[in-house]
Amino acid sequence: MKNAAILGASGYTGAEAVRLILGHPSLKLVALTGHSRAGQAYGEVYPNFAHLNLPRLSKIDEVDWSGVDVVFACLPHGASQEAIASIADKVETIIDLSADFRLSDADLYEATYGRPHGFRDMLAGRVYGLTEFAREELPGAKLVACPGCYPTASLLALLPGIQAGMFSDAPIIVDAKSGVTGAGRKTSAGLIYSELTDGAHAYGIAGHRHLPEIEQGLAQIGGQDVMVSFTPHLLPMNRGMIATCYTELNEDSTVDDLRDVYMARYENDPFVHIEAENVVPQTRHIRASNHARMGIFADRVPGRAIIINVIDNLTKGSSGQAIQNYNLTQGWDETLGLMAAPIFP
Amino acid sequence: MKNAAILGASGYTGAEAVRLILGHPSLKLVALTGHSRAGQAYGEVYPNFAHLNLPRLSKIDEVDWSGVDVVFACLPHGASQEAIASIADKVETIIDLSADFRLSDADLYEATYGRPHGFRDMLAGRVYGLTEFAREELPGAKLVACPGCYPTASLLALLPGIQAGMFSDAPIIVDAKSGVTGAGRKTSAGLIYSELTDGAHAYGIAGHRHLPEIEQGLAQIGGQDVMVSFTPHLLPMNRGMIATCYTELNEDSTVDDLRDVYMARYENDPFVHIEAENVVPQTRHIRASNHARMGIFADRVPGRAIIINVIDNLTKGSSGQAIQNYNLTQGWDETLGLMAAPIFP
Amino acid sequence: MKNAAILGASGYTGAEAVRLILGHPSLKLVALTGHSRAGQAYGEVYPNFAHLNLPRLSKIDEVDWSGVDVVFACLPHGASQEAIASIADKVETIIDLSADFRLSDADLYEATYGRPHGFRDMLAGRVYGLTEFAREELPGAKLVACPGCYPTASLLALLPGIQAGMFSDAPIIVDAKSGVTGAGRKTSAGLIYSELTDGAHAYGIAGHRHLPEIEQGLAQIGGQDVMVSFTPHLLPMNRGMIATCYTELNEDSTVDDLRDVYMARYENDPFVHIEAENVVPQTRHIRASNHARMGIFADRVPGRAIIINVIDNLTKGSSGQAIQNYNLTQGWDETLGLMAAPIFP
Amino acid sequence: MKNAAILGASGYTGAEAVRLILGHPSLKLVALTGHSRAGQAYGEVYPNFAHLNLPRLSKIDEVDWSGVDVVFACLPHGASQEAIASIADKVETIIDLSADFRLSDADLYEATYGRPHGFRDMLAGRVYGLTEFAREELPGAKLVACPGCYPTASLLALLPGIQAGMFSDAPIIVDAKSGVTGAGRKTSAGLIYSELTDGAHAYGIAGHRHLPEIEQGLAQIGGQDVMVSFTPHLLPMNRGMIATCYTELNEDSTVDDLRDVYMARYENDPFVHIEAENVVPQTRHIRASNHARMGIFADRVPGRAIIINVIDNLTKGSSGQAIQNYNLTQGWDETLGLMAAPIFP
Repeated sequence: MKNAAILGASGYTGAEAVRLILGHPSLKLVALTGHSRAGQAYGEVYPNFAHLNLPRLSKIDEVDWSGVDVVFACLPHGASQEAIASIADKVETIIDLSADFRLSDADLYEATYGRPHGFRDMLAGRVYGLTEFAREELPGAKLVACPGCYPTASLLALLPGIQAGMFSDAPIIVDAKSGVTGAGRKTSAGLIYSELTDGAHAYGIAGHRHLPEIEQGLAQIGGQDVMVSFTPHLLPMNRGMIATCYTELNEDSTVDDLRDVYMARYENDPFVHIEAENVVPQTRHIRASNHARMGIFADRVPGRAIIINVIDNLTKGSSGQAIQNYNLTQGWDETLGLMAAPIFP
Repeated sequence: MKNAAILGASGYTGAEAVRLILGHPSLKLVALTGHSRAGQAYGEVYPNFAHLNLPRLSKIDEVDWSGVDVVFACLPHGASQEAIASIADKVETIIDLSADFRLSDADLYEATYGRPHGFRDMLAGRVYGLTEFAREELPGAKLVACPGCYPTASLLALLPGIQAGMFSDAPIIVDAKSGVTGAGRKTSAGLIYSELTDGAHAYGIAGHRHLPEIEQGLAQIGGQDVMVSFTPHLLPMNRGMIATCYTELNEDSTVDDLRDVYMARYENDPFVHIEAENVVPQTRHIRASNHARMGIFADRVPGRAIIINVIDNLTKGSSGQAIQNYNLTQGWDETLGLMAAPIFP
Repeated sequence: MKNAAILGASGYTGAEAVRLILGHPSLKLVALTGHSRAGQAYGEVYPNFAHLNLPRLSKIDEVDWSGVDVVFACLPHGASQEAIASIADKVETIIDLSADFRLSDADLYEATYGRPHGFRDMLAGRVYGLTEFAREELPGAKLVACPGCYPTASLLALLPGIQAGMFSDAPIIVDAKSGVTGAGRKTSAGLIYSELTDGAHAYGIAGHRHLPEIEQGLAQIGGQDVMVSFTPHLLPMNRGMIATCYTELNEDSTVDDLRDVYMARYENDPFVHIEAENVVPQTRHIRASNHARMGIFADRVPGRAIIINVIDNLTKGSSGQAIQNYNLTQGWDETLGLMAAPIFP
Repeated sequence: MKNAAILGASGYTGAEAVRLILGHPSLKLVALTGHSRAGQAYGEVYPNFAHLNLPRLSKIDEVDWSGVDVVFACLPHGASQEAIASIADKVETIIDLSADFRLSDADLYEATYGRPHGFRDMLAGRVYGLTEFAREELPGAKLVACPGCYPTASLLALLPGIQAGMFSDAPIIVDAKSGVTGAGRKTSAGLIYSELTDGAHAYGIAGHRHLPEIEQGLAQIGGQDVMVSFTPHLLPMNRGMIATCYTELNEDSTVDDLRDVYMARYENDPFVHIEAENVVPQTRHIRASNHARMGIFADRVPGRAIIINVIDNLTKGSSGQAIQNYNLTQGWDETLGLMAAPIFP
């Protein structure tokens, strides 16, 4: 049994971490922080937990770290690295869900997030926790950087093909779609209900912050420098993310080969599922779960393949993968606390 | 460990029962029936379960009952009683989620559902499983009739006040609102997406089939013959139900008294929660859970109280309560398999 | 041809007024004000108008009033009365969509809205513009106070019965439901998409600000002091409002009589429609239009009737009725600019 | 003034045609057909029109064609060509909204729609009504085939660049997204509310029937044989369509050039609008209107451009364009009946 603290529990990824930890057999919640709402009962901030006896929200410096084994940091980028640095020697493990330790290149971090990285040493030692591709580094890891939701969806869809050298070096196009919870619990004009319901739109075209992370993953994990064209869209739904990936195969590869590679690569992965031929995955079928469902299709343009991957942005795209990662740092079964079935309808 | 079969697993209440049983530590799914889709893999019918190794859908007469301890019958009314009668002596316990055994008066059943009741003997012996008010009858029960979703929401909201004699004999008005899953997985013209999204409407005015059941509950459990005016509305959401109950207090009762009565009545109930004063419950905060959240308010009309109860129609309003009931038939903790936190956002 | 200015054009009722005036054959938009966004092109604030050549948003004191005949004031209460007072002698007609001139009793205004009314003289001369009940006062009116959305829905549903003396003096219960646009374009935490979609809840129980206005309407227009129990609910949809009204008939009245009274009362009204027997009105069928659709039903409780009225909160509940009122002040056909059919699906 | 009949008025494109014709100054509805619902009042089938005095639904052979000038055929493919052939010599103009006359190659029609084309002579004489590219052929046209919704969205986005020879001959990737009304008013299991809300998915991958039509348009109108990779997605919203088009520019073209070409090409088009730089169009801002809004963006992959076009699938994607086409057949202003502003929020 390990004791967990959640930093930034007032946001959606924090709340999702709370939800999952409540169902985890070997984790106990001992602290929840939320700067602007410190002092409030957590059930006031998230009434879905009001029936439970959970710790009140506190400030970070009010936490008694002696009783904490693992920290799940659900803070905004920038704030996260500072908080983590301040407690790094007080806890055994830190799982960071922010962007702060995702990019291994601190200069790229600065260029992408508009602020210098203050903790390059820690950055050097972190594990990038795209779980299915980090199983060797995770056991015993001290600091795990969990991938962004779009990189998770995209990299799971692309890496097996990249690693097997099946794609040409033509740019890969990722047309992504996300539910609104991906934007967090921000009170911003563009996020109010009447501005978002019953409509859709692209955003962050050619400049989304998750792009460098996707390319880093393809290069560092996959071993191929590929340019990615990435366009996210915001859909009128709560949870769910689709990465529709348009790829060009090498001349000696076929879509059947590609499918075989993916089937083999994910055969033993409890959370990644390759659909039967001609079955298209739907976000609603993995709602509130840590599963990814992936369809692999021959494009009608000869030599091209379309890979469609769906995840829940808050779960596999964030807090679920965080727990999956933590499980592996401890040498536990990675499915602990994550086996509840998706909620449908 | 008990073995469970689900009759009518192709409908939404069947699928919700599957989901909950998968998380139940003492139940194992051994059979799933679905007449029109018999032979299909369950994961084709509900892709949210496609990653699991579940029994295929079969016809009822194909089930090997020798390995079944409990049946959850999720069939339409009419079909349910016949199926149940045909297997009654083959299994230990039957939990019926249909309307067939809810009304203790077979003539009222016929008047309400338009067909004679064929199994009056079984009806006489059934337990009406509004769990919080059936704890004495449930242990050892052979056949449990689970209440309808509207009766569950309404009776939980009204019975403590009725039992305590706090309401006058003026008619009680229940204005109810339901998400669309309450209509089931029916392919009917009125249920298609574009006919239901971004709009709302009442239906079944003065004649909804759940009405006699609500009045039966008030009389049989509460001991008071009260007339109920019941008007359901269909809302553009998946899950969730609100019963907004307008009541008149007796002259010697106050809303503070009423609140005290409810607090005391549900104090030890793990799934029924009385909100703090001035807090209004929201359906989204109990989504996909077995919880009920209830607010008790003084109306501005002197002497009147408003009780607002929210549940998830598929869970506490159907399959969750069914499991809760089964737990009690076995003498188990009633929360087994039902403690996953609500999904929000 | 009259020239119109809209005050507060950055809000939803302002934008709806713009939309309707654009389709009005005798109105021309000459000024749009929006304090915090003054200077911006209107198409940036509302991209649905970006293809049109509309006036930029300005501050109120930048408007050249010499070219303005009519002002539609779509400001928050408090701000509205001050703005109106400042321009009252510069324009021919003022149509106020705020709450500031709705309540004829300035003390009740203060009690309800928490601030003194600063312009009691103007209040005394205003016309309360529930159009179907104000046709005699509207022609030539200088200042028209448009009813709130809930009062519009409720009063249209109740007044014919009240005026005909068909209800007992028992309290009337109005259970109301509204789409989210009723809350305006406010950037508040409770209004963001993920907090509101796929769920519903009541609010403002026993204390909503529209309550005194409803009772004022019943008394001043209907001639009967009736207490009203009013409970609004917020639904996950953009537009649309339902008032479900639970009434008790006088002993010598029947629901058939009631229906006859309503049919006769609204026979010549172009925007109020009594449904055929057993037809339940739906909000989606009057979407984006000035129509009200009303169903009248016998409750199963003898002597009680249920009246269900649906409107679009932004149109008949706000800017549509405002234009209808202005049409009548000018002696025009009241349907001018309002005859576009509802948008469905 | 011309008299219009609508064939297939019980479907959504039929209802949208009714809505638009009701606001058209030179069109009068004289007949509405709907085979399976013949005899019913139109207001029963579409209650949003219940306040109007419209013709009842009839069978096609019950229509008195002597009073009909123009037919809008909103029938399913297959049924449409037969109905049109049967009345072709009885009316002046036929605007077909089905797929039956879209493909100029009857063999391709057969391969795509699985049935032989029975009326090759008529096919030879029809005008393909992508309005902005058909202005020369439309005046006086007898039979106009209106493009599908996806081809409309895609071709408007691609044709100016194609015609100007700005794209390489690399395949163009169109990732499209549609609201649910695009599926029509079909009672099919996959379209019920609870199966579609709060989730998204791709469909028809590599094989959607609109693909040959898109390529036909690029070749016949644009003059370039380009292969298109087209993947549609279904989104949880009523109306709205996005075509996100990924293109490769010729070596001597830049995105600035491309933008200039589009600005010039659509400068005088009342319904096609190129967004200012960095503005991303949203479907909700053209809701219920005939407008297209288009953004042109440099991809981060050098030499590539992303063109994003949004339309309302029922209006510009179907019935609105049909009316626009009819206006031009008559030599009228093409905006007649189509100038109502988009509905937002």
